[in-house]
Amino acid sequence: MPHALFLDELISTLGAEVAQRGDDVPERYHTDWSGTPPQRPLALVRPRSTDEVSALMRLCTAHRVPVVPQGGLTGLAGAAVPVAGAVAVSMERMNAIEDVNARTALMTVQAGATLQAVQEAAVAAGMVFGVDLGARGSCQIGGNVATNAGGNGVLQHGMMREQVLGLEVVLADGTVLPMLRPMLKNNTGYDLKQFFIGSEGTLGIVTRVLLRLRPAPQARATALVAVPDFDAALSVLARMQSRFGNGVAAFELMWDSFIQASIRWQKLQPPFGQAHALLALIDVDGKDEATLRADVEEALGEAMEAGEVADAVIAQSVAQARQLWKLREAPAELNTNMHPPVNFDVSLPQADIGRFADACRAAFDARWPGHHSLFFGHVGDGNLHVSVDGATANGDCEGVEAALYHLVGEFGGSVSAEHGIGLHKKPYLGASRTPAELAVMRAIKQALDPLHLFNPGKVFDL
Amino acid sequence: MPHALFLDELISTLGAEVAQRGDDVPERYHTDWSGTPPQRPLALVRPRSTDEVSALMRLCTAHRVPVVPQGGLTGLAGAAVPVAGAVAVSMERMNAIEDVNARTALMTVQAGATLQAVQEAAVAAGMVFGVDLGARGSCQIGGNVATNAGGNGVLQHGMMREQVLGLEVVLADGTVLPMLRPMLKNNTGYDLKQFFIGSEGTLGIVTRVLLRLRPAPQARATALVAVPDFDAALSVLARMQSRFGNGVAAFELMWDSFIQASIRWQKLQPPFGQAHALLALIDVDGKDEATLRADVEEALGEAMEAGEVADAVIAQSVAQARQLWKLREAPAELNTNMHPPVNFDVSLPQADIGRFADACRAAFDARWPGHHSLFFGHVGDGNLHVSVDGATANGDCEGVEAALYHLVGEFGGSVSAEHGIGLHKKPYLGASRTPAELAVMRAIKQALDPLHLFNPGKVFDL
Repeated sequence: MPHALFLDELISTLGAEVAQRGDDVPERYHTDWSGTPPQRPLALVRPRSTDEVSALMRLCTAHRVPVVPQGGLTGLAGAAVPVAGAVAVSMERMNAIEDVNARTALMTVQAGATLQAVQEAAVAAGMVFGVDLGARGSCQIGGNVATNAGGNGVLQHGMMREQVLGLEVVLADGTVLPMLRPMLKNNTGYDLKQFFIGSEGTLGIVTRVLLRLRPAPQARATALVAVPDFDAALSVLARMQSRFGNGVAAFELMWDSFIQASIRWQKLQPPFGQAHALLALIDVDGKDEATLRADVEEALGEAMEAGEVADAVIAQSVAQARQLWKLREAPAELNTNMHPPVNFDVSLPQADIGRFADACRAAFDARWPGHHSLFFGHVGDGNLHVSVDGATANGDCEGVEAALYHLVGEFGGSVSAEHGIGLHKKPYLGASRTPAELAVMRAIKQALDPLHLFNPGKVFDL
Repeated sequence: MPHALFLDELISTLGAEVAQRGDDVPERYHTDWSGTPPQRPLALVRPRSTDEVSALMRLCTAHRVPVVPQGGLTGLAGAAVPVAGAVAVSMERMNAIEDVNARTALMTVQAGATLQAVQEAAVAAGMVFGVDLGARGSCQIGGNVATNAGGNGVLQHGMMREQVLGLEVVLADGTVLPMLRPMLKNNTGYDLKQFFIGSEGTLGIVTRVLLRLRPAPQARATALVAVPDFDAALSVLARMQSRFGNGVAAFELMWDSFIQASIRWQKLQPPFGQAHALLALIDVDGKDEATLRADVEEALGEAMEAGEVADAVIAQSVAQARQLWKLREAPAELNTNMHPPVNFDVSLPQADIGRFADACRAAFDARWPGHHSLFFGHVGDGNLHVSVDGATANGDCEGVEAALYHLVGEFGGSVSAEHGIGLHKKPYLGASRTPAELAVMRAIKQALDPLHLFNPGKVFDL
């Protein structure tokens, strides 16, 4: 039992209320939403304060024991799954909303606060928080920082990185970096917090976050727009952004096969009398509903005259807007209808997304004639989702992945737009980063975590 | 002559057209706008391509010769001033605007392109670039990246960091990092470009930049607003941002002594019949001028009823807007009217700026009764400028600096909001960063530039 001494010291230092031996760790801490096989950690620590995190890391440094930081365990890339011989550090008890200030549009929270708690605190103060995603009720702000979360608000507010004004981070040796000065402009040496955002727990443990809030929109218009081809869709996006600026809150594109599957699976009424190559779902924020709807109608009318739009419907009520968005919710039905679904979250140069989708379909069809694949995503952000029915690819899910990631590399894209690398996308990281970039990542890791204590085996191998 | 061999090899490798010996280097490369005493570099290299920058760095690594990257030499902190025994690397010849794409709102430029050239190329494509500052005609995009430039567009568009989607950087050993994939979302390992933005040339040489463009505003309204106190000013800002969202393009606050000096120095008509404690200059972007002006008038009317605004004037023409902005242009007269001016560019938690200004004035008055100081700045960004007439502080400019930076530390502020640290603010870096943060900066420096070849002696000492 090489770890017996460490475990004794861990429990005597932090107390049995905070630290549990591996045998006592409930199964819910053994894996995350990524479907990675469960792994029992050496111990589970659920700190109540930054001091406790710091004490933990001092012990881990002294005993050379690695740690795996855990947020809400909703990640899809496996970054928070325990590693044999490592301590799992769940931040769930550090979940206080410490301060909300609508006037300065800032909020200070502990890392374990759920995204939903942050959103609700912002709304209670008359503001909104800029990041939203499906796992909001479970995922934690610290995890959102560690993965640089994306989601539904990126077009308008940017990713998590653009919502973070400050961080408190505990380093491998227990040092606390208190980077929480509430300033938009602070050019005093390297902006260290940037190094930790998106590092997936491999450089430090985020304990506290200073967040920017955004003004709440006063009115929103939703339109479903049929476009003849991908280039027309980008023209419509540019037209809307030129007219409504940052008011364009969503621009989701759905290819025909996705639309047909969504209608079939969810038993929806087709939104238009005929099928179209592509449908764009567009949200625009403005000042009052009637004016905004009229303005959106005018803009889409001009787009129709320019040949960019074939047909369009503008929601006349919140209920109708929800109905239009229903078409986009087919992903919730993927597991029921594909056997299994092979899902992708990739980024591409925005202008090339149409050609990329065509190339994927052609590559799949050449190898698996009659295969079934769906294309959809946050095209306003350059983010495409693809789901392929594994059964229609002879169950060769790895072949589907290799084929698609190969094309991502050829198109100069990213194998992970918003989910991160974790364990699952490590084999494909080289499709998005050059050897020189990977060498610099390793040098940074070596500089900040020389004993390799943080999240071993995640993102890249050392 | 320990450097003779290096110089011979430098010139034989790059050619006399690209590399010049120190004796032949024109004086304009010897210093920058910071007023730092001139220093002749060992040599001047003006590369025409990334390959030439890479070749230079391979030579410098082989011979252990440091380099000082130079942009437009407009920096106010001395970061680009040559260092004895180091090669100055001017990026002025790599000034191509390589690609502008209004539809994807992206532009690729070489690092030596001036900010003004970038702005003009954006406007020619029907877009705008989000960063603007007084040195626009001379400063270069690479320098804007290296210093994370701020300026006039920060409230609406963020600092330079938020305009940069990709970078090409040459490392100390000549390795080229091609981080130019045009994607808003790319969560594939560490976001390395963030490390170089704001590093003031101490980690690598930026050779190429992928920039985000913004939609051009269709209309702009300008208002000059008298507010009774600082808290009222913040309430007006919150009110305007709540109503106009990201349309609020400027919120500049001027304290009474600044206003009086501006009127006196520039022989302006006082904007209001009586003096006010503070005036706020507000720009708001919108869709059409008449509606926008009416909306701004309504918002300011509500602020007046709430007691936040004492008086206000809304420009009815572009000429009148320029006239209102004239009041803000007193800084151009500082050198003529102060002997000498001691100038500051500090950031503070926004809510504390009023108390900070009071504390500064009190501290100065206690030590130098009757001293003359002006307070003004981009308060919407938390950025305060202060100018003190050195003559009224018995010429003790260092005493003025020490007193103000001491208060910045006490208020948890930043000694540099947008100008960087360079040489001049090195003594005060510790007022804004903890020893732990400085240690991490040094570890990053060591990891990326182990021979300390980039910009020695700048930002922090090793």
